Amino acid sequence: MNEPPPITSRRNPIIQQFRRAQEGAEPEYFVVEGLRVAEEAVRAGAPIEIALATPDAVAGDRGAALLDALRAKKIDVRIVESGVLDAASATRAPQGLVALVRRESKTPDEIFKKKPIFIVIAAGVSDPGNLGTLLRTADAAGAGGFIVSRDSVSPWNDKALRASAGSIFHIPIAANVIFKDIAASARAHETRLVATASVGGEIYHKTNLRPPIALVFGNEGGGVADNVRALCEITVRIPIKGMAESLNVAAAGAILCFEVARQRGSGA
Amino acid sequence: MNEPPPITSRRNPIIQQFRRAQEGAEPEYFVVEGLRVAEEAVRAGAPIEIALATPDAVAGDRGAALLDALRAKKIDVRIVESGVLDAASATRAPQGLVALVRRESKTPDEIFKKKPIFIVIAAGVSDPGNLGTLLRTADAAGAGGFIVSRDSVSPWNDKALRASAGSIFHIPIAANVIFKDIAASARAHETRLVATASVGGEIYHKTNLRPPIALVFGNEGGGVADNVRALCEITVRIPIKGMAESLNVAAAGAILCFEVARQRGSGA
Repeated sequence: MNEPPPITSRRNPIIQQFRRAQEGAEPEYFVVEGLRVAEEAVRAGAPIEIALATPDAVAGDRGAALLDALRAKKIDVRIVESGVLDAASATRAPQGLVALVRRESKTPDEIFKKKPIFIVIAAGVSDPGNLGTLLRTADAAGAGGFIVSRDSVSPWNDKALRASAGSIFHIPIAANVIFKDIAASARAHETRLVATASVGGEIYHKTNLRPPIALVFGNEGGGVADNVRALCEITVRIPIKGMAESLNVAAAGAILCFEVARQRGSGA
Repeated sequence: MNEPPPITSRRNPIIQQFRRAQEGAEPEYFVVEGLRVAEEAVRAGAPIEIALATPDAVAGDRGAALLDALRAKKIDVRIVESGVLDAASATRAPQGLVALVRRESKTPDEIFKKKPIFIVIAAGVSDPGNLGTLLRTADAAGAGGFIVSRDSVSPWNDKALRASAGSIFHIPIAANVIFKDIAASARAHETRLVATASVGGEIYHKTNLRPPIALVFGNEGGGVADNVRALCEITVRIPIKGMAESLNVAAAGAILCFEVARQRGSGA
């Protein structure tokens, strides 16, 4: 087998490309780190462009199996020195493997195409951990797509990727979209936009949440913005007991996504 | 009004006490940081021992109102220089106010006393953000108590406190408990222990989850441990669709806590 030569310099153009991707200067790509996420990417058939691994990372059984799986898919894997890999990594303690993956951002219309329509929309979610968890939950609840508004954090943010636990590779995503365009797509596809609130609105489990439906979640501090809510058909709330003022947005997302699943009878 | 003198030295015994509390060497106390959390503590009547504030922090309207509220409760508030406050703080960018609060850990028996019995148990939850979010969700769903096993992260951990968004002050907590003792209390109070799983078990929304009930959540990676599950009466699962393998533990917690609330009819 003709292996490409190891990379030994931080100035290598491939290392530089990873670096630019980490900094957001390669809008077509994102970087995933660690064996676990890379395994998920392979399993899901994600468009991996190239992977870099340290000799240590591919010495173990798990790393060697991943290396084989990548090469079986004709994905270029280059061996790099640990000190050089650090330059291609965003984390302080990279796990010995990084991969450059092509972003596959869809348009809202493409997201609304999959029937039955059940979509989750992040409209102003700013914490990457919350966004990634919401993405993971949407996937687990059987949502067919995920839309991220322009004023939300990127789903390809490093922390969001980790919180998504691989779901970034499973579910079609439209990112960087203004809400007016989302609302136009929803109208065109006769899909109800359902905003969430902690006060006001209908009680979520007494509301029809069967598809076609798109659940809209807002900012951690301010909730769904007024101009977004104005474009939604209904507002639902999760009744809060105790002294808590509100729920974490990813917790609210879990409750509502699985109420949709329950009403669809998917648990049967 | 006789104000105590400002603290100007990092070697001041009060600063040293905050420091020890941050390091876990004062097991009776924990430290809260920032105006928002301190406001929550005051509002909930938490047992604040003493607070430290920079002149800047109490110069604004919000800080001044908090200062008044603390002093109205006869809580000692000492003004400290910003550089000195840093020594009493765990965060890199403290928000100008820290308070030392007495931990009020209950026994499991005390937690099981409140009727109707609806308790949330963290049995091996290791991420402080997840633990704090679970605590916040339990509070919001109307749980009467929260129990943290010895092998979970502490609920008074700095990140857990922040994720709890004030719920640490609202809900009775028993911490550092071995699960066998939790199970003994549950039996004594005729409360069903319900373990969660991603495979196997009964479908959660087809299971009777009305009180008396205690929901048990396990580790992020491994789930509820076998020896813990063996002490639970039933196991329920949240059916996973899509390609996701599992849910984040705080997301699973939200779904189950609010299923209990829904079955209790608290949303009516």
